[in-house]
Amino acid sequence: VDRTNREDAASAGGELEALRLIGSILPTAPSGEVWMGDDAAWIESREGRILATVDAVVEGVHADLSLVGLDDFGWRAVTTAVSDIAAMGGTADQLLVSVVGPPGTDLGLLYDGIRDAARDTAAAVVGGELSTAPALVVVVTVLGHLGPGSAPVMRSGACPGDAILVTGALSAAAAGLRLLRAGTANPTADEAAAIEAHRRPVARLAEGRAARESGATAMIDLSDGLASDLRRIAEASGVGLRIEDVPRAACATEHDSICGGDDYELVACTPDPAALVERFATRGLRRPIIIGECTADPSELTLRDRPLPDCGWEHPFEIPARRD
Amino acid sequence: VDRTNREDAASAGGELEALRLIGSILPTAPSGEVWMGDDAAWIESREGRILATVDAVVEGVHADLSLVGLDDFGWRAVTTAVSDIAAMGGTADQLLVSVVGPPGTDLGLLYDGIRDAARDTAAAVVGGELSTAPALVVVVTVLGHLGPGSAPVMRSGACPGDAILVTGALSAAAAGLRLLRAGTANPTADEAAAIEAHRRPVARLAEGRAARESGATAMIDLSDGLASDLRRIAEASGVGLRIEDVPRAACATEHDSICGGDDYELVACTPDPAALVERFATRGLRRPIIIGECTADPSELTLRDRPLPDCGWEHPFEIPARRD
Repeated sequence: VDRTNREDAASAGGELEALRLIGSILPTAPSGEVWMGDDAAWIESREGRILATVDAVVEGVHADLSLVGLDDFGWRAVTTAVSDIAAMGGTADQLLVSVVGPPGTDLGLLYDGIRDAARDTAAAVVGGELSTAPALVVVVTVLGHLGPGSAPVMRSGACPGDAILVTGALSAAAAGLRLLRAGTANPTADEAAAIEAHRRPVARLAEGRAARESGATAMIDLSDGLASDLRRIAEASGVGLRIEDVPRAACATEHDSICGGDDYELVACTPDPAALVERFATRGLRRPIIIGECTADPSELTLRDRPLPDCGWEHPFEIPARRD
Repeated sequence: VDRTNREDAASAGGELEALRLIGSILPTAPSGEVWMGDDAAWIESREGRILATVDAVVEGVHADLSLVGLDDFGWRAVTTAVSDIAAMGGTADQLLVSVVGPPGTDLGLLYDGIRDAARDTAAAVVGGELSTAPALVVVVTVLGHLGPGSAPVMRSGACPGDAILVTGALSAAAAGLRLLRAGTANPTADEAAAIEAHRRPVARLAEGRAARESGATAMIDLSDGLASDLRRIAEASGVGLRIEDVPRAACATEHDSICGGDDYELVACTPDPAALVERFATRGLRRPIIIGECTADPSELTLRDRPLPDCGWEHPFEIPARRD
């Protein structure tokens, strides 16, 4: 909280040099827009409505820096945030990236991953914030848009009888994390793919748009695990869920595929799964897989006729009684 | 990084209960908009352009929780972020609030301050994120707008001959922090006002708009101290600065008024200070105070004919050599 450290900071590199480094890594604003370097960004909004979401990645909570690189950490912060735009059927346009962490954090490596993920999702970093803190936390805000006249695909629109589909086999990331923890030497091709799925998750933007355009009624991205995230659709939509087959990635266990987080595949509900499959094929996307259907009884949550496990992740906040 | 803790979390309160608590504190979305509870918010953009900024407040770096309350911490996170919109001459519309912190954090008290600051700045919390972390960090993204056809007041527009004005006497907050650290018992009215200025800084939105409308050429909010923030205008605009008088808040020292941070008063440059003062008077705002003028020589940075001290705050990041 001492605020006159300019000489100390300058001799150690300092914030201004850090900002110059970050500026050298990221692209610059087009004419007519303001990105970084002033008090706020000033950007075009493509239509009258904006999608906006934010996600935080915390060292030791969302990623273990003894297992993945700082560039992977930066990548993850961007793609997990952008994934929420994918789950609405939107397009990511702008990112605001806040980095707080220890003074020794290798910001260059971190921003390499941020830049690569921004490029991969076709979004521009237009602003941000930098501060020291005891642990590394990267918070990414994403602004996006839909098509003209379109509405987002919420969690709440599923109807009884809708088919439930996923955009790919599940839980390579959970398998990859287990392989990294085990210190797997000389990984096979499948193992390497699982590790890559953990290090570099992908936001399914094209899949989300294709699902929205083909009439998906509800959608969510799989961040906390299939069982946990499916419950959110069931609760928001007031439907039951009958799950039959769950496609499993190579190296993933049955438990991974139900309870493993960090997939970022999308789950979509639709009354017309053939149209959705057809739209994916037209776009050259992987074939989505039907895993079950929505039912009229909200108390029905089954996996092959047995109760769906309740195994997702919750941050363990303690909630004291309120004063009033 | 273990992701199947639902039962533990539920027994301790847990994230879902935390989210319910937060939902009970904050207002809800108007019909036709999506705020919290889905993957992303979906909101109106009032005109074709958006102002967007983000700010982070870190426990122990930006606020000492042994001196101020968690509600003050939440208030500060919102107002310091909104202040960047004020410094562009804009209006704050939406907030996305990310809270990461220890499981025992009193989220109710924290969100009381967030709600109060959001109300004070007339902005709505439309989204957010919650995660555990070793230290408390609150990151606030603000979306805003200008008037139709208006351009933001940048740091880069000051011209030689422009008058430099501040929106109020400076550095009550720095004085208040010193009083809190000294454990001041039975504060006088002036001391209490200084302490309040530290606990509950104010984003000068109305002042920023009035300055923009009356032709301000450059503007910044005072977060890191007058000397430091004035330098940013001088560098961005390519002008020199000749500072004469600096109005000092009660209890603030000369050093506070030059080097003390956390004021959130605005500094504006304008070729027509009379018009700016008149506009403030019409709006019922405090009379802005001329503190100096911009000059043609970018190497001239003086305070009463002596070199302007170089005393601002920089986060002490260490920048290693890059690999390439």
